[in-house]
Amino acid sequence: MARPRNDTFLRALLREPVEYTPVWLMRQAGRYLPEYCETRKRAGSFLQLCKTPSLACEVTLQPLARYDLDAAILFSDILTVPDAMGLGLYFADGEGPKFERPLRQEWEIRDLTAPNPNDQLRYVMDAVVEIRRALDNSVPLIGFSGSPFTLACYMVEGGGSDDFRTVKSMLYNRPDLLHHILDINATAVTDYLNAQIESGVQAVMLFDTWGGALSHRAYREFSLAYLQKVIAGLKKSHGGERVPSIVFTKGGGQWLEAIANIGCDAIGLDWTTDLADAKKRVGHKVALQGNMDPMALFASAEAIAAETRRVLDSYGGGSGHVFNLGHGISQFTPPANVSVMVDTVHRHSSGT
Amino acid sequence: MARPRNDTFLRALLREPVEYTPVWLMRQAGRYLPEYCETRKRAGSFLQLCKTPSLACEVTLQPLARYDLDAAILFSDILTVPDAMGLGLYFADGEGPKFERPLRQEWEIRDLTAPNPNDQLRYVMDAVVEIRRALDNSVPLIGFSGSPFTLACYMVEGGGSDDFRTVKSMLYNRPDLLHHILDINATAVTDYLNAQIESGVQAVMLFDTWGGALSHRAYREFSLAYLQKVIAGLKKSHGGERVPSIVFTKGGGQWLEAIANIGCDAIGLDWTTDLADAKKRVGHKVALQGNMDPMALFASAEAIAAETRRVLDSYGGGSGHVFNLGHGISQFTPPANVSVMVDTVHRHSSGT
Repeated sequence: MARPRNDTFLRALLREPVEYTPVWLMRQAGRYLPEYCETRKRAGSFLQLCKTPSLACEVTLQPLARYDLDAAILFSDILTVPDAMGLGLYFADGEGPKFERPLRQEWEIRDLTAPNPNDQLRYVMDAVVEIRRALDNSVPLIGFSGSPFTLACYMVEGGGSDDFRTVKSMLYNRPDLLHHILDINATAVTDYLNAQIESGVQAVMLFDTWGGALSHRAYREFSLAYLQKVIAGLKKSHGGERVPSIVFTKGGGQWLEAIANIGCDAIGLDWTTDLADAKKRVGHKVALQGNMDPMALFASAEAIAAETRRVLDSYGGGSGHVFNLGHGISQFTPPANVSVMVDTVHRHSSGT
Repeated sequence: MARPRNDTFLRALLREPVEYTPVWLMRQAGRYLPEYCETRKRAGSFLQLCKTPSLACEVTLQPLARYDLDAAILFSDILTVPDAMGLGLYFADGEGPKFERPLRQEWEIRDLTAPNPNDQLRYVMDAVVEIRRALDNSVPLIGFSGSPFTLACYMVEGGGSDDFRTVKSMLYNRPDLLHHILDINATAVTDYLNAQIESGVQAVMLFDTWGGALSHRAYREFSLAYLQKVIAGLKKSHGGERVPSIVFTKGGGQWLEAIANIGCDAIGLDWTTDLADAKKRVGHKVALQGNMDPMALFASAEAIAAETRRVLDSYGGGSGHVFNLGHGISQFTPPANVSVMVDTVHRHSSGT
């Protein structure tokens, strides 16, 4: 299996020389694109869109048709794994993800098992195969999963939360139970990402959306340790090519040194961290991905270009940087503004 | 004017020797206390409670009757200043603070003026006088305000926000307008806190609840610069006693070195920051206040005591530490659990 024709993204993650800084956007196939909304309407629901490989493939490719992006990301949800465990993922209108059967009783936790990704998550693997075929080796395809802790948050809370009272009550009162869930999640996420790699994804990203809600000490014990376990279990290459891994703990800017030590190839950063400072702190251990404030995309073209250049300049050039937003793109973003950012990244970083 | 009989809190803020680590809780007079809910019901509404000095005094003292706390904090809201500017603060049921007349037009912003705290905010000063009288020099009284940026968030958004799209659009598109608001807010907050000091508060705290939502660069320009302006304009002493200042930027753990340089006496920390690490980073410039996860108060008595000791031990003893939660106490906290924390702080830090 050859590297894609545009492999800038993979080289940047591996800190190999690049001609320009590669760029992609978290949630690049999303509601800010009218063509996405159209396909989603056809699918009937967000979950049906995730579970229909041909439609997941269609929306994965949509942002690449509009913008000069350097990577595609599998269209899916971070919560497919607990859904495959039988918790019943659903989306209430305008409320974010929820589970019909959150983990509340000790026996429910004891009964939890890691799903077989080639069985209950077959639809994801089918989508990967279909997307790889459609991409025809143009740019790399990124696979992903929620982190063990982030999955546990949703599994125990039953949905999003402002204060994570239920899962944190378990953390402080019954750490043994939370560790049991996290152990199973780590196995499940490892198996899931390895199946994605075997199906064809060329890099993987772990979204630790809620790790930043933990205390510095609890983060290490309940999130980072399990991220490390997943990373240790991942296939490092497939078909003779390295498959780099990216770890993104939103709000984890204070813990970069620790994250850089778990064996991942790159760290995702939100906009609160100075890239220059981050680069100094992690040394040559890992590449960095990020970190423009998604809200900067609501500015004028000049202001967007200026902010894009500022982010690039804060990294300061050289390899090891993948440009991205510091969080998923807002559904309210005017699509034309994304072009300004993407083109500025390429132009400014190549010195043209 | 003499120092209060228990001045441990003031000494810790000034990094003078103390016999034990002082403790108070953000939002210590709040809905987790049944007696507070009773008084609030009598007042008719939260805002009426804030605006009635005798009732504000009553609830300020309630947590001190229950717990062995080392400071009282004025019962009020962080948004009294924009309310006094005429924006019309109100609280929709279960939705948090909102403004009837958010700043949306340029002329509204140009028309904005700092209120006279002894006129439009007279009710706050009256409450301070009444509380000081009731405290009878037992423990110090803390005054406070929202930070210029945090006030601006609410003033422009018209309420809380997940993404701060309106205020950040202004930040990136019309930074001149946002700077204009922040300038007026800084003057208003300075005047307001100085009036509180003259009325009798013995320390002041600036709550920068939303500064942590900014990029590292924007934080310095749009929040920290104005916090510095406020601090520079504060009366440093009253009646011959130093009046220490505390700055709390939630989510600002990455920026401690910068915050320590603006002239405040202490920095408030949320639970994501390791106190040992923070102490090293700020050196002897400032005291530190914090930082137990409020959710740890949902654990068993043993687990609460253990977590309390861990927080104390992470600071490592010596002066310059005020124990607190890393955020306001949750309304769902069982009141008995607070005693466990407060008593553990005193016992463990005095080595008894």
